[in-house]
Amino acid sequence: MEQTKLQFLMHYFAVMNVVIIGTGNVAAVISTMIKATQHKLLQVAGRNILKAEALASSAGAEASSLDSVRTDADLYIIAVADTALPEIAQKLHVAGVVAHTAGAVTKDILANASAEYGVLYPLQSLKANLNDLPPVPFLIDGNNNKAITKITAFAGSVSHQVAIADDGKRLKLHTAAVFVNNFTNYLFAVTSDFCKKEGVDFSLLFPLMEETVRRLRTHDPADVQTGPAIRNDLLTISRHLQVLANYPLMSELYSLFTERIRGYWDRSKG
Amino acid sequence: MEQTKLQFLMHYFAVMNVVIIGTGNVAAVISTMIKATQHKLLQVAGRNILKAEALASSAGAEASSLDSVRTDADLYIIAVADTALPEIAQKLHVAGVVAHTAGAVTKDILANASAEYGVLYPLQSLKANLNDLPPVPFLIDGNNNKAITKITAFAGSVSHQVAIADDGKRLKLHTAAVFVNNFTNYLFAVTSDFCKKEGVDFSLLFPLMEETVRRLRTHDPADVQTGPAIRNDLLTISRHLQVLANYPLMSELYSLFTERIRGYWDRSKG
Repeated sequence: MEQTKLQFLMHYFAVMNVVIIGTGNVAAVISTMIKATQHKLLQVAGRNILKAEALASSAGAEASSLDSVRTDADLYIIAVADTALPEIAQKLHVAGVVAHTAGAVTKDILANASAEYGVLYPLQSLKANLNDLPPVPFLIDGNNNKAITKITAFAGSVSHQVAIADDGKRLKLHTAAVFVNNFTNYLFAVTSDFCKKEGVDFSLLFPLMEETVRRLRTHDPADVQTGPAIRNDLLTISRHLQVLANYPLMSELYSLFTERIRGYWDRSKG
Repeated sequence: MEQTKLQFLMHYFAVMNVVIIGTGNVAAVISTMIKATQHKLLQVAGRNILKAEALASSAGAEASSLDSVRTDADLYIIAVADTALPEIAQKLHVAGVVAHTAGAVTKDILANASAEYGVLYPLQSLKANLNDLPPVPFLIDGNNNKAITKITAFAGSVSHQVAIADDGKRLKLHTAAVFVNNFTNYLFAVTSDFCKKEGVDFSLLFPLMEETVRRLRTHDPADVQTGPAIRNDLLTISRHLQVLANYPLMSELYSLFTERIRGYWDRSKG
């Protein structure tokens, strides 16, 4: 551990020549991040050469097809769809460190691409077209110390929050992320629809939504649950279900969550 | 509308003598809010006299039982459980404006308490013991202009976000709040449990959760959905379900939301 820290510090300020393979949201965000660092983006390689050119030109790099990836970079970041990873990993043979950015794919898919390989997984919901970049924690893995050190150093130069996580831990956090982002955002989407249809202002709920997340920094979510379900307030529950009478999908969710919440906190108390 | 605005301005800086009936979370938060205003909290009345005394003494007010509520206040705020409202409303007969704080109860439950009555509903999840107060939008209603003006003036002196909403709109927003706060917090609670049991750090997800909410100020939630369900990424979905094999309640939620998300965005696109 001490040795890793020392290596980390030694590499922290080192300039890296970087190649990004991929042209989607994660590739775009990482190329934007690189601009603010000492590192140099040499090349953006992509199946879609027009997209690669667009991304490369905005970052002052060269564009290439997947068949013409340079071999002189220090770090190769493969940010492509999980399904495209195996073929790209098979084609690539380089001396630099190779990292993919996938939450649910083993690092060993890169075993033949380089002697040093690993993972640089951004634990954030990234969209290329969002104007200001949110904080992005990175989960790092590598097949040996050199890979871990190099990828950690790169991550540390673009993010304040870097953690080591092996395949298993990364997959668990990836699964957890689906609950706290994807499922939560789905609840927001159906609620926003409902508000539009009913002519009430969804944005009045923003302070509540922000508070729901904010208080997690100081409170366990199990300790701050409020609402009719945990109070076992059957009258309010029935009024809400009446409001939702024309929204069968929301009614079903309402009943399911109400039942779950009552069971969850009963069990905790018991 | 213009007349209401004028009246609003006229009353905005008026000092009000306030009585709070109730000693729970909402009563505590409103008494704290009053301290920062020009208004004077005269009395806190509660069924539980010890709780009323605790709250009153921290606010420099007098405490009383429900049978000794003063009759000389400008504004009476009834912040009690929905089930306790009818009895309290029946007992109270005053000249000042009377408002309850319930999201799912009609204002007309107060019809016999005063000639001017209405609602002062905080659209926020309030806990008395949270250290710093979040922003609290208030939904206002009243049986006539005088009631609306008075309650709006009070709300405007303790909050930057005040909106008029009748019984129907308030109940709709109350229902929506259950989805974006109660159900979301339940997802956070089960995910936090999962992370504890699996030995991964739940707090690594905070930036993701904060971003999920933050981007709603500039993006419709339907436009920023990410994750395996909307990508129809069956391999990742099956890996996640494997991770959740020992968590039947989470597995069930995972399958339900995955199905829902696929259906929702298919329909939107179609």
